[in-house]
Amino acid sequence: MPYVKIEITRENNTREQKLLLIAAVTQALQDILGKDPATTFVTIDEIDTDNWGIGGELVTDLRQRKNHD
Amino acid sequence: MPYVKIEITRENNTREQKLLLIAAVTQALQDILGKDPATTFVTIDEIDTDNWGIGGELVTDLRQRKNHD
Amino acid sequence: MPYVKIEITRENNTREQKLLLIAAVTQALQDILGKDPATTFVTIDEIDTDNWGIGGELVTDLRQRKNHD
Amino acid sequence: MPYVKIEITRENNTREQKLLLIAAVTQALQDILGKDPATTFVTIDEIDTDNWGIGGELVTDLRQRKNHD
Amino acid sequence: MPYVKIEITRENNTREQKLLLIAAVTQALQDILGKDPATTFVTIDEIDTDNWGIGGELVTDLRQRKNHD
Amino acid sequence: MPYVKIEITRENNTREQKLLLIAAVTQALQDILGKDPATTFVTIDEIDTDNWGIGGELVTDLRQRKNHD
Repeated sequence: MPYVKIEITRENNTREQKLLLIAAVTQALQDILGKDPATTFVTIDEIDTDNWGIGGELVTDLRQRKNHD
Repeated sequence: MPYVKIEITRENNTREQKLLLIAAVTQALQDILGKDPATTFVTIDEIDTDNWGIGGELVTDLRQRKNHD
Repeated sequence: MPYVKIEITRENNTREQKLLLIAAVTQALQDILGKDPATTFVTIDEIDTDNWGIGGELVTDLRQRKNHD
Repeated sequence: MPYVKIEITRENNTREQKLLLIAAVTQALQDILGKDPATTFVTIDEIDTDNWGIGGELVTDLRQRKNHD
Repeated sequence: MPYVKIEITRENNTREQKLLLIAAVTQALQDILGKDPATTFVTIDEIDTDNWGIGGELVTDLRQRKNHD
Repeated sequence: MPYVKIEITRENNTREQKLLLIAAVTQALQDILGKDPATTFVTIDEIDTDNWGIGGELVTDLRQRKNHD
């Protein structure tokens, strides 16, 4: 029954990492709430850093500034 | 007024199918709840099978295993 | 696999209507995309009319104005 | 940066369970993707079983049938 | 056309504040992207502080600790 | 704390417009609700006009018809 949406920035996330993340979240729902993995959906939405803002700035710009510091 | 988000895996869904789906959902909201189609939004989010997990596994892998069986 | 989120205003939607809506959307996904109902999730989010805006106004106010006209 | 939305049915989930779930998901994002917990948001949406459908039926009815079997 | 979902904690947000927020976001979409307010939906989801986690902790606990400091 | 998801059609939105939109929404949350920009997330989801329906029709078709009128 659970449906989980994970939103992360699109920054070279590997297939392996996505599998590990989906498995870990599914396991947590089973361990903590007894949810059946067979009916647990987990989706990952990878969002461009130009489409994610924090503090009113684009993550793309925040990353660039951080790399220059 | 209604807003509907349909999330499906990105597996060759045709434009025609998406139109049929949007029309069917809009019609259901009108028939059942009397909602005005003119202010009914329906969006479709097609998600890569590497980004959708069920039972802690990627749909990509589930599909491959199913094809080998 | 499909996950559908239906957002409607909280305006005396009956249990029967919600069941009809869920059944209709599930049927459409099966008919149009061949999706298995057993792994089709449909959720309904009923939102207060004070928490839904159109044209920069609250639906509550839009409804009141409409009733006075 | 990550934002995670966990949707589960409203079935007596305790505060302790919700804390454990939030902590586990935050830890997984840190371990697997190196995400900073301080900027990791996790929200839990508890949905009435009358507002969640599977196989075109309400979870409320599925639960009742299961209890009678 | 735009659909905007604003998620905030449920902490005594007044009707007036919600109206101001909806109006401001609708105006920004019109000014910046020329979107028609008449077909701009903005919804506000107020989430309990027990259902929102940051840094793996519940906002309820973060607030209490902050008040004691 | 706030999380805002802005869904708009994918129609040549520029990086500059997305920055302006994110900044305006973040500012509104600070001005109206006193929310700290540093922990305000705003994401933009650009949706293909073939994946957005209004009145049971695809926005792509609505746009074409409008251009022919």
